[in-house]
Amino acid sequence: MQMIFVVYEGMTALDAIGPYEILSRLPGAQVTFAGVTAGPVRTDTGALSLVADRALADCGAPDLVLVPGGPDVRAQTTDTPLHDWLRAVDSGTTWMTSVCTGSLILAAAGLLRGRSATSHWLALDRLAAYGVTPLAERVVRDGRYVTGAGVSAGIDLALTLAASIAGPAVAQSIQLATEYDPRPPFTAGSPSSAPPALVSHLRANAHLVMST
Amino acid sequence: MQMIFVVYEGMTALDAIGPYEILSRLPGAQVTFAGVTAGPVRTDTGALSLVADRALADCGAPDLVLVPGGPDVRAQTTDTPLHDWLRAVDSGTTWMTSVCTGSLILAAAGLLRGRSATSHWLALDRLAAYGVTPLAERVVRDGRYVTGAGVSAGIDLALTLAASIAGPAVAQSIQLATEYDPRPPFTAGSPSSAPPALVSHLRANAHLVMST
Repeated sequence: MQMIFVVYEGMTALDAIGPYEILSRLPGAQVTFAGVTAGPVRTDTGALSLVADRALADCGAPDLVLVPGGPDVRAQTTDTPLHDWLRAVDSGTTWMTSVCTGSLILAAAGLLRGRSATSHWLALDRLAAYGVTPLAERVVRDGRYVTGAGVSAGIDLALTLAASIAGPAVAQSIQLATEYDPRPPFTAGSPSSAPPALVSHLRANAHLVMST
Repeated sequence: MQMIFVVYEGMTALDAIGPYEILSRLPGAQVTFAGVTAGPVRTDTGALSLVADRALADCGAPDLVLVPGGPDVRAQTTDTPLHDWLRAVDSGTTWMTSVCTGSLILAAAGLLRGRSATSHWLALDRLAAYGVTPLAERVVRDGRYVTGAGVSAGIDLALTLAASIAGPAVAQSIQLATEYDPRPPFTAGSPSSAPPALVSHLRANAHLVMST
């Protein structure tokens, strides 16, 4: 199974690396990190570079595409070469997926029109402008389009996908191999469970987390 | 706060990227990815390169060091330059940390002798050979030495550290910004909770997951 993990300047690393760590362990997985051009890309913090081993145009026809998000995807929601590639490979994929604000990129390319999707909770309401029904869920599947919520949600998205692709026993085996037995020391990971004052503070200061 | 994320050929990407995504968001965090030599390193799957922006020797005195693991750390448990660097900076650090089999590297460098630590569940019993007491816990703190269990445990380790460094409100804010509200679709993430047949199967085939 050919899997393309899209990378670009300013992306959030964990959006891609979480699901990569799960999906790359599927039997027969052939994973490529690729960007509009090949070469290193600097992630959002400025402190880490991931390498695009190939240009997207040189990747052939993938079975699965994963588009990560970032705090500022304005360049990627208007990136014609990226959108052209996404539209060109879309109909040949078995799974077209995103994490975090990656769903805004799929939506901007026109791939999610009339569908349901999720995104980072601070960006969720921006999906509607692209004709997408936003759902405040951790993982949303609408046909072969599977979108995950913010950043860390990519791990849950990938385990869900792994089960659909290779069955629950394989997915569980990968979960055990990656010791995914999460024990967050606080209950603050979603706007529905975090202290309300914290949610209000982040909403009021959303520009510090995310650019529109 | 100067934070060094150590990278090396064959490491597991999520071991470093999980905690990086949390700790880099701390106020004042200055993060550097570094290796014995600078340049790209290929991670364990062969499908992804991360970039060491600097050589460890050029990094000065870090406040926090994180050493990731990998399925085969035999080269790193006998890597004299890496061990020399770890021993040289150790006493100046506030936090010396590891994820997964990264604890075997700290142990092999002699930093954990007489202490308690954790590791990937399939590697846990190898700590004893270095004079370390293995604990089957997700995150183990012994003084300024903080070790995490396998792969995904680095996120929990980092949130625990974030709270110690900057207080629980900041840690919760980072948890909400990264939407860390884990919902694994299965209960199979630890040998204590996974189906016993699956645990036995992975133990019997541990060589497929990890080299000794």
